[in-house]
Amino acid sequence: MTLETISTSKAFGGTQGVYRHASTATGTDMTFSVYVPPHEDGARLPVLWYLSGLTCTHANVTDKGEYRSACAEHGVIFIAPDTSPRGPGVPDDDAYDFGQGAGFYVDATQDPWAEHFHMRRYVEDELPALIAAEFAMADLGRQGITGHSMGGHGALTIGLRNPDRFRSVTAFAPIAAPSQVPWGEKALGGYLGPDREAWRRHDACAMIADGARISDLLIDQGDADPFLAGQLRPELLEAACRDAGIALTLRMQPGYDHSYCFIATFMADHVAWAAQRLKP
Amino acid sequence: MTLETISTSKAFGGTQGVYRHASTATGTDMTFSVYVPPHEDGARLPVLWYLSGLTCTHANVTDKGEYRSACAEHGVIFIAPDTSPRGPGVPDDDAYDFGQGAGFYVDATQDPWAEHFHMRRYVEDELPALIAAEFAMADLGRQGITGHSMGGHGALTIGLRNPDRFRSVTAFAPIAAPSQVPWGEKALGGYLGPDREAWRRHDACAMIADGARISDLLIDQGDADPFLAGQLRPELLEAACRDAGIALTLRMQPGYDHSYCFIATFMADHVAWAAQRLKP
Repeated sequence: MTLETISTSKAFGGTQGVYRHASTATGTDMTFSVYVPPHEDGARLPVLWYLSGLTCTHANVTDKGEYRSACAEHGVIFIAPDTSPRGPGVPDDDAYDFGQGAGFYVDATQDPWAEHFHMRRYVEDELPALIAAEFAMADLGRQGITGHSMGGHGALTIGLRNPDRFRSVTAFAPIAAPSQVPWGEKALGGYLGPDREAWRRHDACAMIADGARISDLLIDQGDADPFLAGQLRPELLEAACRDAGIALTLRMQPGYDHSYCFIATFMADHVAWAAQRLKP
Repeated sequence: MTLETISTSKAFGGTQGVYRHASTATGTDMTFSVYVPPHEDGARLPVLWYLSGLTCTHANVTDKGEYRSACAEHGVIFIAPDTSPRGPGVPDDDAYDFGQGAGFYVDATQDPWAEHFHMRRYVEDELPALIAAEFAMADLGRQGITGHSMGGHGALTIGLRNPDRFRSVTAFAPIAAPSQVPWGEKALGGYLGPDREAWRRHDACAMIADGARISDLLIDQGDADPFLAGQLRPELLEAACRDAGIALTLRMQPGYDHSYCFIATFMADHVAWAAQRLKP
């Protein structure tokens, strides 16, 4: 594995970098960003993964997420992967909510997606191994995960699948029950096929119903989010967590929408939540 | 004057808006952003103007400037105008540093620029009047101004021209002496013509040499900025301020470049500097 540095800039005493590598999981080049906060030589720092929503690349949160101040304060590395494989050789769909920019953090089994769309394997396996190899200060024994919308779905499902690895799981306006909403039905059906049993391993509410457990969970959700009732449905996650005894902190934020203005407002809280759970 | 609201989002308890209006100064539609922090009904708040650099619109700092947290904390309205008139009927230049996206905050006297390129008048006169008319909570008796690069030049020159209006003047990596560097020579020559006497009213160092005064001034400048020696030249401003007895705080920031990672890192300091000087 080799890593190409696209750019680095000093920010809040640390380094904001953007990198590219040839991914075996997706069979494409993949771009991601890493913020390394200021630290002592030889220090090892916890890692917070941020998974982005529909249409996004690594750049949206890197530009608009306002995480660097909090990550510098708490000494947390912040990593933002892309949301799908991309490029002229990769299949796509005209819709914004399927194909490139909409990988949904699953490993596709259906043609033509099965060749490249392996975002679960990419985020869960390949990119952490690359980070461990290339960023000596990253302590992969201390990982947290968060994300927004489709990326909130990714954070919840990957967190629930790997409770020993991710000691902190949070989300901003996640697609909480993709099997039960249009975005999720389209994506899971398209990538995984019509058998809804196969979807359950990629639906946070179904995973919890099927026995997956994490100790606690922070969700922020704007009550002026236009996707709240139709696509996000935090009340289903609330019910699943209640039934399972998972300590969910669900904060309905009055007046906030689905944008990065919402995310940036509460980003410092999510970094602090992760930092608290990722102490050595 | 009528104002069209393009978007609003709640952010850090306040409202981030983007607006458009038909400008008489430029003869075009102009777009700008306003952040209004949380406030009591009937409260009147100070205003901080932010002028952007080459190639930018209002959107760059609105997306990447990370000012909302500090503006919410200090109760400061933050306004980001565009950097030039734009559109198919507006003359342009193929270069990034002249024409659309590069208005340099002057009123052009040379054809073909003289018809639309009146960014001094737009920023100094028309937009403040529009803000006073449309944003009842904006206290135009308390204004500060800041900006980046070309916009730092704009902040310094407009601040020096109106010392009674702008009680706070700061800048990030400003073009401190445009008459003496390639960016400025091209733009001032192009918009104002070859007579360098006409440039002096748009060059912070020349204005100070000619008697303009403000009480104090904060400048942040990255020492890894690739434009430092060739285009920005803060040492000339330092000498001008020393000769004139202007209290300049010039902070050379080690390792920082010319990007919004640099600006965002020090933005809260500039908002606090303004807030301190704009108390009722």
